[in-house]
Amino acid sequence: MCGVFGIYFGRSEAARYTYLGLYALQHRGQESCGMVTTDGVNFTAYKDMGLVSDVFTDEKLAQLPGNVAIGHVRSALAGKSSVLNAQPFLVQSRFGMVALAHNGNLVNATSLSQKLQETGAVFQTNADTEIILNLLARADTANVEDAVIAACRELKGSFALTIIAGDKLIGIRDPLGIRPLCLGRFSDGYVLASESCALNTIGAEFVRDVLPGEMIVIGPQGFNSYYYGGQPLGESLCIFEYIYFARPDSTLAGRNVYQVRSAIGAQLAREYSIDADVVVPAPDSGTTAALGFAKESGIPFEFGLIKNRYVGRTFIQPTQALRNLSVKIKLNPVNPVLADKRVILIDDSVVRGTTSAKTVRLLREAGAKEVHLCVASPPYIKPCFYGIDTPSEEQLLAANYSLPEIQSHIGADSIHFLSLAGLHTAVGSGAEKMCGACFTGQYPL
Amino acid sequence: MCGVFGIYFGRSEAARYTYLGLYALQHRGQESCGMVTTDGVNFTAYKDMGLVSDVFTDEKLAQLPGNVAIGHVRSALAGKSSVLNAQPFLVQSRFGMVALAHNGNLVNATSLSQKLQETGAVFQTNADTEIILNLLARADTANVEDAVIAACRELKGSFALTIIAGDKLIGIRDPLGIRPLCLGRFSDGYVLASESCALNTIGAEFVRDVLPGEMIVIGPQGFNSYYYGGQPLGESLCIFEYIYFARPDSTLAGRNVYQVRSAIGAQLAREYSIDADVVVPAPDSGTTAALGFAKESGIPFEFGLIKNRYVGRTFIQPTQALRNLSVKIKLNPVNPVLADKRVILIDDSVVRGTTSAKTVRLLREAGAKEVHLCVASPPYIKPCFYGIDTPSEEQLLAANYSLPEIQSHIGADSIHFLSLAGLHTAVGSGAEKMCGACFTGQYPL
Amino acid sequence: MCGVFGIYFGRSEAARYTYLGLYALQHRGQESCGMVTTDGVNFTAYKDMGLVSDVFTDEKLAQLPGNVAIGHVRSALAGKSSVLNAQPFLVQSRFGMVALAHNGNLVNATSLSQKLQETGAVFQTNADTEIILNLLARADTANVEDAVIAACRELKGSFALTIIAGDKLIGIRDPLGIRPLCLGRFSDGYVLASESCALNTIGAEFVRDVLPGEMIVIGPQGFNSYYYGGQPLGESLCIFEYIYFARPDSTLAGRNVYQVRSAIGAQLAREYSIDADVVVPAPDSGTTAALGFAKESGIPFEFGLIKNRYVGRTFIQPTQALRNLSVKIKLNPVNPVLADKRVILIDDSVVRGTTSAKTVRLLREAGAKEVHLCVASPPYIKPCFYGIDTPSEEQLLAANYSLPEIQSHIGADSIHFLSLAGLHTAVGSGAEKMCGACFTGQYPL
Amino acid sequence: MCGVFGIYFGRSEAARYTYLGLYALQHRGQESCGMVTTDGVNFTAYKDMGLVSDVFTDEKLAQLPGNVAIGHVRSALAGKSSVLNAQPFLVQSRFGMVALAHNGNLVNATSLSQKLQETGAVFQTNADTEIILNLLARADTANVEDAVIAACRELKGSFALTIIAGDKLIGIRDPLGIRPLCLGRFSDGYVLASESCALNTIGAEFVRDVLPGEMIVIGPQGFNSYYYGGQPLGESLCIFEYIYFARPDSTLAGRNVYQVRSAIGAQLAREYSIDADVVVPAPDSGTTAALGFAKESGIPFEFGLIKNRYVGRTFIQPTQALRNLSVKIKLNPVNPVLADKRVILIDDSVVRGTTSAKTVRLLREAGAKEVHLCVASPPYIKPCFYGIDTPSEEQLLAANYSLPEIQSHIGADSIHFLSLAGLHTAVGSGAEKMCGACFTGQYPL
Repeated sequence: MCGVFGIYFGRSEAARYTYLGLYALQHRGQESCGMVTTDGVNFTAYKDMGLVSDVFTDEKLAQLPGNVAIGHVRSALAGKSSVLNAQPFLVQSRFGMVALAHNGNLVNATSLSQKLQETGAVFQTNADTEIILNLLARADTANVEDAVIAACRELKGSFALTIIAGDKLIGIRDPLGIRPLCLGRFSDGYVLASESCALNTIGAEFVRDVLPGEMIVIGPQGFNSYYYGGQPLGESLCIFEYIYFARPDSTLAGRNVYQVRSAIGAQLAREYSIDADVVVPAPDSGTTAALGFAKESGIPFEFGLIKNRYVGRTFIQPTQALRNLSVKIKLNPVNPVLADKRVILIDDSVVRGTTSAKTVRLLREAGAKEVHLCVASPPYIKPCFYGIDTPSEEQLLAANYSLPEIQSHIGADSIHFLSLAGLHTAVGSGAEKMCGACFTGQYPL
Repeated sequence: MCGVFGIYFGRSEAARYTYLGLYALQHRGQESCGMVTTDGVNFTAYKDMGLVSDVFTDEKLAQLPGNVAIGHVRSALAGKSSVLNAQPFLVQSRFGMVALAHNGNLVNATSLSQKLQETGAVFQTNADTEIILNLLARADTANVEDAVIAACRELKGSFALTIIAGDKLIGIRDPLGIRPLCLGRFSDGYVLASESCALNTIGAEFVRDVLPGEMIVIGPQGFNSYYYGGQPLGESLCIFEYIYFARPDSTLAGRNVYQVRSAIGAQLAREYSIDADVVVPAPDSGTTAALGFAKESGIPFEFGLIKNRYVGRTFIQPTQALRNLSVKIKLNPVNPVLADKRVILIDDSVVRGTTSAKTVRLLREAGAKEVHLCVASPPYIKPCFYGIDTPSEEQLLAANYSLPEIQSHIGADSIHFLSLAGLHTAVGSGAEKMCGACFTGQYPL
Repeated sequence: MCGVFGIYFGRSEAARYTYLGLYALQHRGQESCGMVTTDGVNFTAYKDMGLVSDVFTDEKLAQLPGNVAIGHVRSALAGKSSVLNAQPFLVQSRFGMVALAHNGNLVNATSLSQKLQETGAVFQTNADTEIILNLLARADTANVEDAVIAACRELKGSFALTIIAGDKLIGIRDPLGIRPLCLGRFSDGYVLASESCALNTIGAEFVRDVLPGEMIVIGPQGFNSYYYGGQPLGESLCIFEYIYFARPDSTLAGRNVYQVRSAIGAQLAREYSIDADVVVPAPDSGTTAALGFAKESGIPFEFGLIKNRYVGRTFIQPTQALRNLSVKIKLNPVNPVLADKRVILIDDSVVRGTTSAKTVRLLREAGAKEVHLCVASPPYIKPCFYGIDTPSEEQLLAANYSLPEIQSHIGADSIHFLSLAGLHTAVGSGAEKMCGACFTGQYPL
Repeated sequence: MCGVFGIYFGRSEAARYTYLGLYALQHRGQESCGMVTTDGVNFTAYKDMGLVSDVFTDEKLAQLPGNVAIGHVRSALAGKSSVLNAQPFLVQSRFGMVALAHNGNLVNATSLSQKLQETGAVFQTNADTEIILNLLARADTANVEDAVIAACRELKGSFALTIIAGDKLIGIRDPLGIRPLCLGRFSDGYVLASESCALNTIGAEFVRDVLPGEMIVIGPQGFNSYYYGGQPLGESLCIFEYIYFARPDSTLAGRNVYQVRSAIGAQLAREYSIDADVVVPAPDSGTTAALGFAKESGIPFEFGLIKNRYVGRTFIQPTQALRNLSVKIKLNPVNPVLADKRVILIDDSVVRGTTSAKTVRLLREAGAKEVHLCVASPPYIKPCFYGIDTPSEEQLLAANYSLPEIQSHIGADSIHFLSLAGLHTAVGSGAEKMCGACFTGQYPL
């Protein structure tokens, strides 16, 4: 998972606002971050491992001049942890300097890379971004906008890109719109961001989502829209954005995330009638759904588990006794609200199931008489190929075990998954067209 | 504010468990931390600026051998930010090596320091801890336990200490018991901690609070209790621990903090009947009270403000426009749950009032039709001299302005403080004896 | 200036020996360093800003497995200071993984880059290395060795490369041999290095210099040599390597650097007969020549200036008085050997002249009655385009002023430059074919 | 070993000049450094682990206001490596704020510490400095100057102190004057420093050495001198300062260090007539003596061993083969000046003998036909108790073995130590009264 941002306006403070925008998108990636700024002539880039607030000091921002900028936050992916993979990429090409930030995942990366290598391309990283830039630079087009489209037409998979080329800021989304991207108006210019929360943070006005298969080109005269995706296939936004990734205050495809999560909780309560004393969220991702569940069911909501806000770097403890305590560092049960209670635990999803099992055990140790796990999504049965770092199918609990086996593995008294139809109901009209391949195996490509 | 910890048991892993204990107490201080360990013969100390998880790497912990340890987390106090002030202090004295960690504040520090200097003492820091150690070392007693008592009898103010002297672990609390300290049983030994949450984290069993005026001496044969405070004056635990400082899952003086906060919210709802659409907490400190308020009032609870979990180091932005955005980095309004709503905002307290004013403005910008601020504590009118870093009286909003003036300063449609009696009711029997000097000006000393 | 290294042998400790080799070449570049290792299948890379001993910790080396490695040290060049420019570069290409480290400078970099961009190449850095790799990847050859040669045939300028391609280690030098590269035998394999001192450090046996226009390919069966440079043009090794760059214990083109410097000093003494009391080197670069001068002239050699070995990062002092002291931090005059003496100061070269002027003033302040500056090289009148970071012609003192003007600028009683013929004599037979363009303006290309 | 500095003048830039002074004294200690500055009212302190140029950034210096300052550089001593031991110490006492920096070593530290503890003192470090400050604070005197004297009268051992007390800068030396301290005039004030090189660096004028048993008190009216040492015993300056510690450009007790070292070399040449081809110094400490030796003997001087200037942090290599290379990282033999030569190696001293043995082996591997080690000091047979971190007697090579055994251990063809009388001759009149206990066992106390 990653987050992208872009700004084009009339003041030479693009870096400052990109900093704030990336801050707002930090939940989409904490491993590395970066930005490229330009005044239309000179380009400056800076990227490093770490959080936005650590990488971009006041001094660094002062060294990033210009009225146009793009930025990126990147999440840790196994085995690729290096500043060389940090984004945006800034390259010199036949279209001049081009900077590009990418959220998504190409499913034809290997074949594209192979084909490009056959004609002499070299790749310094295993980032999809380098592939896109090579395609762009080889496009047989008169201008860079057409080159962007030519390149994107060769891509299969998900991509939401912010690009600086020449004196233009470009935003583009894959024809299925799997990863989100939206457009805002700010001061005398425009802003692009993975989520609307980044617009809010800088005080930009939400204009609309960039559409699937649409390219937005922003310049001194405002923005122009180009469709390149042929027949629009309808939006296939990743439905997991609503369940887990996006920030609650963001609005994606016209639906506020907080409200969707609340509706999911309510739907779950409608689907399963459980006799219990208290509804407890697995913090933080289960909180909003739990609130919706509690309201619908009438069962009191309580913070039975408090998350430690100071959990930083952790390391392997030398003994099993110490290792067993690790979950207690992160989650602190409030015993009085749990003791002798029948607890409904609300979690956003069950992937491997290890965290859920630990959480259930924690609740029992705190005195819970019963623990019923209600999951705010359908069983997670297929890996994602569109940008989410999921384990392979054999590690997905729900892909390999029956419900009673899952319940026994988790150690809960009962376990209840939201139905796919219920998820669609909660998300609202059009939800059935969204990408829910992780729950259905029906990949949109 | 600070947090102290101590452990005495039969395995040479005292550092590992102290690490976990300090982790659980991290909310009591994030500036510096440290620990001293011993096997009864050799003493090892390590302290540094920063969070527990940054200061104590696996390698550092491996270099802190022994079955006895004390630890400390310290919060930032203006102008004293240096590793020299980090605790615990470890000194060589006529009683051998003595290590001491202190939570609290001495009101007679200046006169004690003066008196000690007159007879030749030198002070390397302005920490109270050094004063206590000098008094201890000068005590005309046969053993170190008596020296601890002799030193503590000269102290005025609040103190909760963990001490290693010789082969003993000592915990001691001031005669009024202003700062908390509790005792737990762990494996074949005992644990001391500022809050019970640290016992839970390592899996220790809560035994009881160390009493006001009590010294607990832990050795190979278990623990002994000594009263040194003369006629016990009754517990004057800082009532602000319940309102703000302590972690919700801790139990202080027999009352669970989460439950007290929930009761405070309910009491506030009983005291003020406000016609509104939604109850929104100022995260994180107002959350539990807001939940209690919502339940009692029947007005729906919603997370109208989401706290950004990645806020790190911040710096002064160069323009006013950018500075105005700083609150938006930290707090993100969920517009759909606020727009056109009459909002009850629940905050734990109003000290200077600057944060409250910013939060109210944020809610209005998000579309709230009305904002009613309900404060989960009485007006804060007097500085604390017992360990809380408060501004001087002229900076305390409620000490200098009338209720209408405060309301106007905050920009709320109405503002409501919990009554003192209401606070006492929510905390429960004995609350009226607790220290609430910040609300009443009646200092227990 | 940079330094390159490569090793191919039968033990999986290539990283350890590359570390030692880079250590020995550290004088050729202190800004960044890096290495790529491989076992023939997997490639591992690590590079960062900083000295070899800071970048490569024990832990890092343990994560660089393999029996083949190349390494690089890079010196700071204005405006290009970033880890992205650190070498070696490791790319995926149609020849598989290729790693490349470069010492030198291409004079046709701009036109090559332009041409490559026109056919779709993108450049992430302004390093020549990326150009070479793109040429290599586009070469229409059956194997990677031929591709290396095809790429090098397009290059104009200086280059000494170490390359890993597939299971081969390759070393190659430009047809003029401007930058040095030598071959050594080590254990059951071979080593390549910019200077022979790196062979000595790891205990490798010097075999011979890689020849101008020669490619050495090292594999499991030993090494093969290929000439690609057409008619060898004769060695045009940079003569400044002897004067300044190379380490005294290195042997380049059959001449030991220390001995050449000593001969230069003697030659200088033969060229100019100066009546003086003491010969003092400008440390460290003038030391060996000063020793040669003293022996030839019979005037006593003394360390009149001691270099402070702890000079680290420096910053601009706020007042002129403080700024004037900066040279005194670095160079400490030994007054008793200077007071009332007629001093011959030996420096390696005069580029801008600022350091020489400061050094002369320092000697005078220490009591020197006369200061005669003898320069161990001819007047430096032209910029270098082959890998040395020199100022533009208008900043070169000797390019713009007459001898009396230079003398007056430096503040010396007399100033004497080594003659070009004298330099050739000291370096020995073949010296007149070496590149001395900085002294003559006769660039070999 | 440590270095101390102090400045009192009329401008509020004391920190800047102390920085330069400490830079010049960096060779006396590289582990930690610090300074205390004052305007006579407020005191500011900063100290940390590391080199002067790393610890004191521009920003830090800007936060150290005042016209009076003392500073300290400290060398690493086994097992005491912590910022808590860094100097100067700044304490509050009955004489107000007192800052103190100490070079030397107390032989009665344990008994003083014991005595002070018995009357209630506590010690946070094992630095002698804390003992001196406690004595000072307990002195029954009317003013702080008398307290300094009273404290110093109780000390046995070596000490050279710079102190700020109230509005005075104080320098004081032990009655034997074992560690050096000198006084300079600078601008409208005065400077104190361990070595005169620090005066030179800032452009101060050397006034004179502080005398053994003398206290210099510097205030707005200039300086006053007080003798407290009773009958002056004559100067017992550590003779090893000339051999190894002091910087060559310093002048101690009227003798320039460079000239003494040169005379030592000449004396060594007079004592031993060796048939050899070349004189080679063990860099850097043997260089000046080697030059003197070469001049006196007529045997050519050459830099046969070049020291690598970039040697930083080193770590234990995993194999013996790699460990054997460690000396080659640091010292690089210039083979052509060594091959087939009879070499005289000049080293400053032989303590454990390990380094000498490695150096001799290095010369042989480089082709030296014979290696004759000439040592610029007598056999080192006793540990130092006055401030030099020497190994215990059983680790001193010359204390435990005969000359043939030493020669065999070192692996040299012959080994020659300077005679004690010869050392005295080279140092000059008064040398026989200096402390040479490490060579004689005759400790001055």
